[in-house]
Amino acid sequence: MSKQSKQGLTVKKDENFSEWYPELIQKAEFADYSSVKGCMIIRPNAYSIWEKIQNYFNQRIEKLNVKNAYFPLFIPESFFKKESEHAQGFKPEVAWIENKEESERLAIRPTSETIIYDSYSKWIRSHRDLPLRLNQWGNVVRWETKATRLFLRTREFLWQEGHCIYETKEECDKETLIYLKEYKKLCEDLLAIPVIMGKKTEKEKFAGALYTTSIESFMPDGKALQMATSHNLGQGFAKAFNIKYLGKDEKEHYPWQNSWGLSTRTIGALAMIHGDDQGIVLPPNIAYNKIVIVPILFDKDKEKILKKANEIKIKLKKYNPILDIRDYSPGWKFNEWELKGIPIRIELGPKDMQKKQVTLVRRDTRKKEFVKFSNLSKDIDKMLKDIQKNLFNNASKFLELNTIYVKNMDDLKRAIKNKKLVKAPFCLNTKCEDKIKDEADGAKSINIPLDQPKSIKDNCVYCNTKAKVICLFAKSY
Amino acid sequence: MSKQSKQGLTVKKDENFSEWYPELIQKAEFADYSSVKGCMIIRPNAYSIWEKIQNYFNQRIEKLNVKNAYFPLFIPESFFKKESEHAQGFKPEVAWIENKEESERLAIRPTSETIIYDSYSKWIRSHRDLPLRLNQWGNVVRWETKATRLFLRTREFLWQEGHCIYETKEECDKETLIYLKEYKKLCEDLLAIPVIMGKKTEKEKFAGALYTTSIESFMPDGKALQMATSHNLGQGFAKAFNIKYLGKDEKEHYPWQNSWGLSTRTIGALAMIHGDDQGIVLPPNIAYNKIVIVPILFDKDKEKILKKANEIKIKLKKYNPILDIRDYSPGWKFNEWELKGIPIRIELGPKDMQKKQVTLVRRDTRKKEFVKFSNLSKDIDKMLKDIQKNLFNNASKFLELNTIYVKNMDDLKRAIKNKKLVKAPFCLNTKCEDKIKDEADGAKSINIPLDQPKSIKDNCVYCNTKAKVICLFAKSY
Repeated sequence: MSKQSKQGLTVKKDENFSEWYPELIQKAEFADYSSVKGCMIIRPNAYSIWEKIQNYFNQRIEKLNVKNAYFPLFIPESFFKKESEHAQGFKPEVAWIENKEESERLAIRPTSETIIYDSYSKWIRSHRDLPLRLNQWGNVVRWETKATRLFLRTREFLWQEGHCIYETKEECDKETLIYLKEYKKLCEDLLAIPVIMGKKTEKEKFAGALYTTSIESFMPDGKALQMATSHNLGQGFAKAFNIKYLGKDEKEHYPWQNSWGLSTRTIGALAMIHGDDQGIVLPPNIAYNKIVIVPILFDKDKEKILKKANEIKIKLKKYNPILDIRDYSPGWKFNEWELKGIPIRIELGPKDMQKKQVTLVRRDTRKKEFVKFSNLSKDIDKMLKDIQKNLFNNASKFLELNTIYVKNMDDLKRAIKNKKLVKAPFCLNTKCEDKIKDEADGAKSINIPLDQPKSIKDNCVYCNTKAKVICLFAKSY
Repeated sequence: MSKQSKQGLTVKKDENFSEWYPELIQKAEFADYSSVKGCMIIRPNAYSIWEKIQNYFNQRIEKLNVKNAYFPLFIPESFFKKESEHAQGFKPEVAWIENKEESERLAIRPTSETIIYDSYSKWIRSHRDLPLRLNQWGNVVRWETKATRLFLRTREFLWQEGHCIYETKEECDKETLIYLKEYKKLCEDLLAIPVIMGKKTEKEKFAGALYTTSIESFMPDGKALQMATSHNLGQGFAKAFNIKYLGKDEKEHYPWQNSWGLSTRTIGALAMIHGDDQGIVLPPNIAYNKIVIVPILFDKDKEKILKKANEIKIKLKKYNPILDIRDYSPGWKFNEWELKGIPIRIELGPKDMQKKQVTLVRRDTRKKEFVKFSNLSKDIDKMLKDIQKNLFNNASKFLELNTIYVKNMDDLKRAIKNKKLVKAPFCLNTKCEDKIKDEADGAKSINIPLDQPKSIKDNCVYCNTKAKVICLFAKSY
């Protein structure tokens, strides 16, 4: 039997993470490679996760008075050039379309600041038009040249990008943080992934931003993964695109802007963090089908068991249960649904029927429990909550255990080698950041956690001058 | 005051439809032109309509076991060429991206049959894998060279495209029709737009299809507008992409396929059909905000009225009411919300307070009604249903009154000149179809309604040989 056709995973997470991950993603039918180099196909099992994220996030941002809109896929070359840092930052990875009758080259959006702010300059006249808060769900293209990694590095991906514009820096600062906190909440409550909120260094900030904040998670292979960013863009784009408003003081002012985004790469993080040697493990809050019912059918009791299984399906409707009556063996089905990560499996066989019970198997611990028919709804609800909590706790413990504070480069290098997330005192000098990267096997600054000690006693891990912050360093995706 | 800055519409629908429409779309903040030629911006007032369509349609197709997925934006040139009719059909309107390191040219999808069926050929092995039903929401690009019309003709638009694959022609025929009927239901129930289901002629069918079915609506300017299509693709793409399945008979077979799509152009139809000289008229079922509350505030009763307005807002929460307390005059606000098409306006002033009532103004007829506080919920519900029904009835009457049966070319030409939707006996010969177009000012065959008389007595409107069908002809978008 070939590797690809075997039902379950052929490599173990602990033994060969870098082969385990793509096999997991493909066999669980989360995604597939495409004939177009660098592009991926998001299959229904993963797309339903993206839809859950969309629904959840739309409800949250609606309360923050953000509205959804849609702007063009194409961006004129001259728009990029208006904000010079932005233009430089995205230059290598922009895809262009072949010139037809147009005089100007058109890019496929790698991000939409410029095309959106061109419209803002037409729409905004007065302080009455502010704040303006729009969000867009869509596809973006960045022409990656490194090897494709499903969900993590592809030339096209899906995301949302929010673009808000305010009268004052204070409002802009405040809301830049609000969106960051929304992302944290989404990751923790929905995906069961703990994240660290922080500020990017000057070197790592978004091209054209005043400053960038991010949430970062830590993967089992010792790499950090940026889950979302929220940028305070300052007034740079407003000046470049000539966005002005007439203030209450009857004078013209440049407004302040932020932008913030979260992409389908979060689905990759979800798979990496919770997945195991049997497959995906879905946190119940993100699972569309939270339950699968597998009836164990023998000729004798077949009809009775099927009837009961159907009753259970109807009773548990709100969890979108799958009732699997396909012509496969129970064992095959168990493997299949474990591979796909369904949080709870309900088994129902002749013995269960006799005892007026079902067998519940939870995906996270794979432990069995017998539950009387009469207690089913209550116990399922409790178990789902417990799985969600357990997954988050395990991921939090992993993060905690693998975070190390270091004071010198020898310790930093050793920690990076041991696949740790490193906390180190740092002077904020870009030269030190470059040197650390050179000497510590490519480790980058991840972010400067918002949660900082009151005073920093240690000196910079690299140059030994006074440290200004505690900064996270790690290899990263 | 310039034309653009005046609050309301400056042209009348009956007097100058072709100027009324773009002014309506822009002033109601449904959409705006972009600096990228041929592209548009869908603003929140219209994007919320698209989201309603998405939510409604997702619920419907879920019941039909269709799942959502996402395929790449790019299509290799060789994929287009695999199905020759398809390649020819889309050749003039495809946008290509500039070659980077790739050996093959990449198109931006104008539709996704080829890129999706490339994956189907990898995924489908056995009859157990069929039927496979996937749907994609996304953007597509067709490089139009004619003048841009917001929602109706743009180089990029949003749509959904469903792609299903079956063992037999019978299943495929059956479900091709099921999706068409879903589109009809969506247009009628949600958008209050009556449509005619029919089959396209050979000349007008989708490039690569066995046959194309469509739903067509009729606009106030005498042009037909295709609202959605559902194609039976036969086995052509399966053969071109080498999609085969092992049947229950243990032999290899080519499966049958359909594809079906509905786009943001339906929003343009909605605006054209229901809109009037005051602005957009939203059918309640598609309106996100079904109600606007405008308190009439004088210093004396201000607090009391505001308190009551807030109570009403909470009471009517399920209709997402807007409470407009901005610093503008009531008259300005009335105009604003009529322009944007909110189905019901609630006015609440000192007199209303005294009488324990509100004034309701419905957007479709602009008639006033006084309703006691105690009856409000019930009466609002009734009025919303009545508006929905009234809009559909008006559009149906318009369609009926403007549909004319003709037996000869003189009558056909006169009817087209008079902006009618023409029903005519037709021999199905493409040469006749071309001649009709030439002689009747560009009128095209719209579709062959599914609802046909039992026998057709009249001869073909053009060649006077035996007619095979009754066909619709009109100018079209």
